[in-house]
Amino acid sequence: MTDFDATKALFHLPEGVIYLDGNSLGPLPRAAAQVMQKTIHKEWGEMLITGWNKAGWMEQPMRIGDRIGAMLGAEPGHVCLGDTLSIKVYQALAAALALVPERRVILSDSGNFPTDLYMAQGLIRALGRGHELRLVDPEDVADHLSEEVAVLMLTEVDYRTGRRHDMRALSEMARDRGVVTLWDLAHSAGALPVDLAGCGVDFAVGCTYKYLNGGPGAPAFIYVAPRHAGRIEPVLSGWLGHQAPFAFDLDYRPAAGSERLRVGTPPVLQMAALEAALDIWDRVDIDDLRARSIALGELFISEVESRCPMLTLASPRDPHRRGSQVSFAFDEGYAAMQALIDRGVIGDFRAPDIMRFGITPLYIDEADIGAAVAVIAEVMHNALWDRPAYRRRATVT
Amino acid sequence: MTDFDATKALFHLPEGVIYLDGNSLGPLPRAAAQVMQKTIHKEWGEMLITGWNKAGWMEQPMRIGDRIGAMLGAEPGHVCLGDTLSIKVYQALAAALALVPERRVILSDSGNFPTDLYMAQGLIRALGRGHELRLVDPEDVADHLSEEVAVLMLTEVDYRTGRRHDMRALSEMARDRGVVTLWDLAHSAGALPVDLAGCGVDFAVGCTYKYLNGGPGAPAFIYVAPRHAGRIEPVLSGWLGHQAPFAFDLDYRPAAGSERLRVGTPPVLQMAALEAALDIWDRVDIDDLRARSIALGELFISEVESRCPMLTLASPRDPHRRGSQVSFAFDEGYAAMQALIDRGVIGDFRAPDIMRFGITPLYIDEADIGAAVAVIAEVMHNALWDRPAYRRRATVT
Repeated sequence: MTDFDATKALFHLPEGVIYLDGNSLGPLPRAAAQVMQKTIHKEWGEMLITGWNKAGWMEQPMRIGDRIGAMLGAEPGHVCLGDTLSIKVYQALAAALALVPERRVILSDSGNFPTDLYMAQGLIRALGRGHELRLVDPEDVADHLSEEVAVLMLTEVDYRTGRRHDMRALSEMARDRGVVTLWDLAHSAGALPVDLAGCGVDFAVGCTYKYLNGGPGAPAFIYVAPRHAGRIEPVLSGWLGHQAPFAFDLDYRPAAGSERLRVGTPPVLQMAALEAALDIWDRVDIDDLRARSIALGELFISEVESRCPMLTLASPRDPHRRGSQVSFAFDEGYAAMQALIDRGVIGDFRAPDIMRFGITPLYIDEADIGAAVAVIAEVMHNALWDRPAYRRRATVT
Repeated sequence: MTDFDATKALFHLPEGVIYLDGNSLGPLPRAAAQVMQKTIHKEWGEMLITGWNKAGWMEQPMRIGDRIGAMLGAEPGHVCLGDTLSIKVYQALAAALALVPERRVILSDSGNFPTDLYMAQGLIRALGRGHELRLVDPEDVADHLSEEVAVLMLTEVDYRTGRRHDMRALSEMARDRGVVTLWDLAHSAGALPVDLAGCGVDFAVGCTYKYLNGGPGAPAFIYVAPRHAGRIEPVLSGWLGHQAPFAFDLDYRPAAGSERLRVGTPPVLQMAALEAALDIWDRVDIDDLRARSIALGELFISEVESRCPMLTLASPRDPHRRGSQVSFAFDEGYAAMQALIDRGVIGDFRAPDIMRFGITPLYIDEADIGAAVAVIAEVMHNALWDRPAYRRRATVT
């Protein structure tokens, strides 16, 4: 049984703050601060260039990939760290499209995170082969999964509402129709159990600064199923994905398997912080975490609904149909969130009217939920949000 | 007049080490270690998600871009930080090719760093429009600059030999023939004066972990000339290059000017270390630096040549035709470099036979050069490299 009091003690959480925004940026693991000191002074400072070998920097992308892969039900050696989620979407989508050259439709939904859609649009323009990005409502995806579709590109958990797709059912349906799947796990990794191999997923991508607590700007990851890994011709064919990077050949030859998804020099400092953050997961059973996330989410919803009738639940009521966040709609949601943040309850806002609250059992407990709801009720009932200072529109993540 | 004793004191340099590999990875600026502590504890730890606004994380890519741009003769607002050099090559080359849609040849040279060539190869495959990557000998570039060429893609300073192209002359010649220029400044930025605007360069890219001392895996930069910035349709169309990232539109619309070259979430921790490293440059006149680099390089060459006749100069003898490194060819160069490193003189090796030594006046002085040459002479004359332990082949940068 996972000891969540013990995991909470592993984080630095500011005094007077209840942090319900770990779905956007996870808080600081105390060990990450210590490891960064070591990485900077003992590795960069003392080893200098030899750190690439002596400190294992060169192996970070696949070593950390295996640790994250184990949390996602991926086969060892098939998750690679690096770049940003946007870049990884581009890389995965290009590889996915190449597997079904005769089809032209990329199916996604209107709840997907915009950068996934933007990167698809840029890739389509670059390819210039008449691909179409077809967006449907999230609940209509299955109905549009025809044999015309090349790639089904979805984010499992909606960034605004927390609505969760049925990854297993959609992946099976896709496979039956010859559609390649690309799942964005930005709001899944570290939030709920994922079974990439078991679901027969083809490609997956995700970020590590949300539920995995890797720090601001932590690198992204990409997964490719073993059955495809050796067939991919990487569109982003960088030297560290080369079969022999230090032979300095003039021609690209892809590395064996998924290592070909490496591109350039890894962000060593970010990787070090992330690797330290992942140690926490060695103590966590993901099923325990999910059960506790659901319990805390249910508590939060019932308390908010009973005390703040002006807030409308925007997340699915069935906890199995949502990820690890709870969203409420409120017309003055931006101002209300500013007022909450001023009072130490940190969630965030997504246009047009969504107040998001991340439920992160690693460091949030029942007492936090109770205290947060008390502040929310105070702000809502006393219209504390209705002040000019809170009226500026959101500009930042 | 730049005080190079003062700049040397700003770095942590390990006891017993003479570091002649700043052309691969710059050493640790003391301030970077301090700033990282602050960024981790006061920003990530205390501000959490609000750091994007309060700590200015969101502005890092363009703010730091302007500081690097000022060192390169770029117009303000036209250098953007992020991703890796490989990704930036892809992004710049795609934009460059789109400016000359009727031409099909990318001209480069066989001394270019392989990842630049690999990324071009991947882009050519993705585009599928019959582009050709044409490689010629470095000294033959001008002869091949025909009106058939779409893009001239060169690295100013050769990573192995330090040979330096004439950026001004080649850029002018290219412009006269309607060829778009893309310069890789990996071994130029922080090593010698660069005049992007004055040379009429169209695109430039570079990395920040070499002479700029940004730390292992520090982000890359990209420059686009103002005359092109508003015309580019980014192939890597990520959300932070969108006109209104936090409107979460479903369609990509590029941001104004060069900010459209942003892609995903910036690596905040790496950026913080880099920004601290750049403070050192506020004390440096780049012409002073270049003069001192030449003086130290000439001293190094004359001392090595007089004491180690078995080493053959592989860099141009004319200091104005080389960057800020000196290379010697030696058949047993790999083993010899291992022996040097064991004795505290850190340079590096590049296949097949190149021993590289970076000359970095910010923290290397005449005494270091003298001491390094003494060790080199000892290793060479006593064949201290001729031991089994030094025979393993290089695998790392």
